[in-house]
Amino acid sequence: MKNDNFLRALLREPTEHTPVWIMRQAGRYLPEYNATRKKAGSFLALAKNPELACEVTLQPLERFALDAAILFSDILTIPDAMGLGLYFAEGEGPKFERTVRTEADVARLGAADLESLRYVFDAVSLIRKSLDGRVPLIGFSGSPFTLACYMVEGGGSDDFRTVKSMLYARPDLLHRILALNAQSVTAYLNAQIAAGAQAVMVFDTWGGALSDAAYREFSLAYAKEVFAGVTRTAGGRIVPRIFFTKGGGLWLESMAKAGADALGLDWTIDIGAARARVGDQVALQGNMDPAVLFSSPEAIEREAKRILASFGTGPGHVFNLGHGISQFTPPEHVHALVEAVHRHGRNPSPA
Amino acid sequence: MKNDNFLRALLREPTEHTPVWIMRQAGRYLPEYNATRKKAGSFLALAKNPELACEVTLQPLERFALDAAILFSDILTIPDAMGLGLYFAEGEGPKFERTVRTEADVARLGAADLESLRYVFDAVSLIRKSLDGRVPLIGFSGSPFTLACYMVEGGGSDDFRTVKSMLYARPDLLHRILALNAQSVTAYLNAQIAAGAQAVMVFDTWGGALSDAAYREFSLAYAKEVFAGVTRTAGGRIVPRIFFTKGGGLWLESMAKAGADALGLDWTIDIGAARARVGDQVALQGNMDPAVLFSSPEAIEREAKRILASFGTGPGHVFNLGHGISQFTPPEHVHALVEAVHRHGRNPSPA
Repeated sequence: MKNDNFLRALLREPTEHTPVWIMRQAGRYLPEYNATRKKAGSFLALAKNPELACEVTLQPLERFALDAAILFSDILTIPDAMGLGLYFAEGEGPKFERTVRTEADVARLGAADLESLRYVFDAVSLIRKSLDGRVPLIGFSGSPFTLACYMVEGGGSDDFRTVKSMLYARPDLLHRILALNAQSVTAYLNAQIAAGAQAVMVFDTWGGALSDAAYREFSLAYAKEVFAGVTRTAGGRIVPRIFFTKGGGLWLESMAKAGADALGLDWTIDIGAARARVGDQVALQGNMDPAVLFSSPEAIEREAKRILASFGTGPGHVFNLGHGISQFTPPEHVHALVEAVHRHGRNPSPA
Repeated sequence: MKNDNFLRALLREPTEHTPVWIMRQAGRYLPEYNATRKKAGSFLALAKNPELACEVTLQPLERFALDAAILFSDILTIPDAMGLGLYFAEGEGPKFERTVRTEADVARLGAADLESLRYVFDAVSLIRKSLDGRVPLIGFSGSPFTLACYMVEGGGSDDFRTVKSMLYARPDLLHRILALNAQSVTAYLNAQIAAGAQAVMVFDTWGGALSDAAYREFSLAYAKEVFAGVTRTAGGRIVPRIFFTKGGGLWLESMAKAGADALGLDWTIDIGAARARVGDQVALQGNMDPAVLFSSPEAIEREAKRILASFGTGPGHVFNLGHGISQFTPPEHVHALVEAVHRHGRNPSPA
C-alpha cells in the first residue's frame, strides 16, 4: 500500500503525518457526485450500482489528498435486506415501507439476507481494485441500535417516540431486534472485509439520544457483540475498527472497552480531554465541527491547528470532522482543511 | 409560603420530599391549555396577555402536585423587544422578521426595550398573586448564546450554519451581539424578580451544539455575566438561579462555577455521576428522558426510582425531565410521574 498512515494511526503506530478523511466525503457538496447521482437516477440506485458507487467513492480522492476512502453506501442496507423496504421520499430522509413495532412484527423479523447485499460486496471489491493500494478502504455499518431506531420509527425522528416507548415499556422486544441486528451487522462487516475492506467503522448515529443507563443496555452492549464477532485480520494485516457514537462524549471510558481500536468523536468534546480519559486504550478520530467549513480558509486552518495541538504529539490521531460534511460546504474549504492538517499534523515526536 | 421545598432544594437545604416540576409543564399536552390558547388566538397572543398567561401557568398545578410554577412565556421575548419582530409561522417554530448577520445589522442592534416587555412583568405579578404562596414562581430567559442563534439564523436551525459561520469567521461580531444579549437578559431577569419571580432559570438550549472551546467562549462566558448581574435576594430571601445547557454534560465542572445555584441536566448523563463531578458546589435539576412519559405508569415509576436512587440521599435534587415535555404526552402519565417522585423521593437522610 502506498499510504497506510490511516491504518497505522488507528493502531496507534507512528505515522508520517496525521491522516485525514471526512465523513460523507463522497457527497452532495461535490458537483461531480451530483452528476453521477443524476445519472443513477436516485441515491438508492447509486448505492445499489457497484460501478457508480465505485465512481463516487473515488471522486473526493481526485480532488483532495485524503488518507482513506470509504465505501459509498447507506447505513440502512441491513434493514432493507431484512425485507423492510428502504426508500427515500423526495426531500425527506430514509423511510421503510414496513416497521417493526409489535410482538408479531418482531417474531416475523429475520436476519438480513446477505445474498441480497451482494451489490455492496461487489462495490467493495471494485473499489479496492480501482484504488490499487493508493489509500485504505473503510467498510461500515450502522450500529444495531441506530438501525433499530429506523426500523421501529419507520424513518428519522426528532424524539424517537416509538422506539423509546418500546425501550421503556417492552424492553424484551427491543432486545430481540437488537440481537438480530448485531448478528446481521457482524456478518455484513465480515463480508465487507472478505471483499476487501481494510478497516471498518460502526456508526451509532442515535445512541447519543439515550439516557446513560439505556445507552449501556441498548446500544453499547450490542456494539460490543459486533466487535467480538468481527474478523480481526485479513491478508495478514489487522483490520482496525472504529466506533462512533454521536453525542457519546460522556461514555468514552466505556466505549474504549467495546472492542474497537479507535473511537470517533463529535466536536463537543475537546480531543485532548478525550485522550486524557481513554489513555492508550484506543486511537481517536475527529473532531472538527462541520460548520467550521462554512467559514473561511483562515478560520479552518486555525481550528485544524487548535485540534491538532489539543491532541498533542504521538500517534493515534485520525483527523476528521465530528459528523458528516454538509451538502452546503464549498469544496475549496475541504481542500483548505486537508492541506492544513497535512501541513500542521506532522506528529513530530511519536510517543 | 406553603411549599418551599423547591427553593430549599436549589440551595441544597433539607426538604420534606424531592420537589418536582416539569419543563414546559403549561403546554400543548394539556387540553385546558389548548382551549386557552385557542381563546387567545395564537401562542404569541397568549404569551402577551398577562391574564391568559397566568391562567395557563396555573393549569398544571390544578392537575398535579407540582412543587413549582414557571412563568408562561417564550424564550425569545428579548430579541422581540430589540425590534427583530418575533412571529410564529403555522406549524413551524419561531421566526424573526429581521436577522442580525452583517456588521451594519450588529451596529444597529440595541438593548431590549424593557418597557415593551411590561406584559411579562405584569404576568409575573399576577401569577404571584394568584399562587398566593402555594408554590414558588420561576422566572426565566433564554441564554445570551441561544438568543443569538435565533437572532442570526432568523429562526430554528438544524446545523446553525449562519451563526457558526459568524462565530468562526467574524467572532468579533458575535461577541458584540452576545454582550448586548447578556446585558438585556440580566435586566430582564432582574425585572422579573422585582415583579415577584422567586427563582430564575437560564435556558441555554443550543450551547450543546458548540465545540468545547466555542462553548466556553461564546456561551458559558456570557451566562456568567448574567449571573454576576442578577439580583441575589428579594423579600429577604435568596433568589436561586438554575443554569441549563442542553447537551452540556461534558462541561458540568465549568458550569458549576458560572454563578448558578443549580444546574439543569438533560437525560444523557447519570445524575449520580453528575453529582460526583460537581460535589457540593451546586444542586442538580433533572433528568428523566421526556420519552419515558410515552411508555407506561409502571415504566415511569421504575425510571423515576432509578434516577432518585442514582442521585442518592441528602439534599440538592429537584426532579424534572431532561428537556421540555412533549405535546404528545398523556397527561395521566405526568400524574404517575409526580406521584412516583413524591412517593419515593423522601430524601430520608439529609447530608
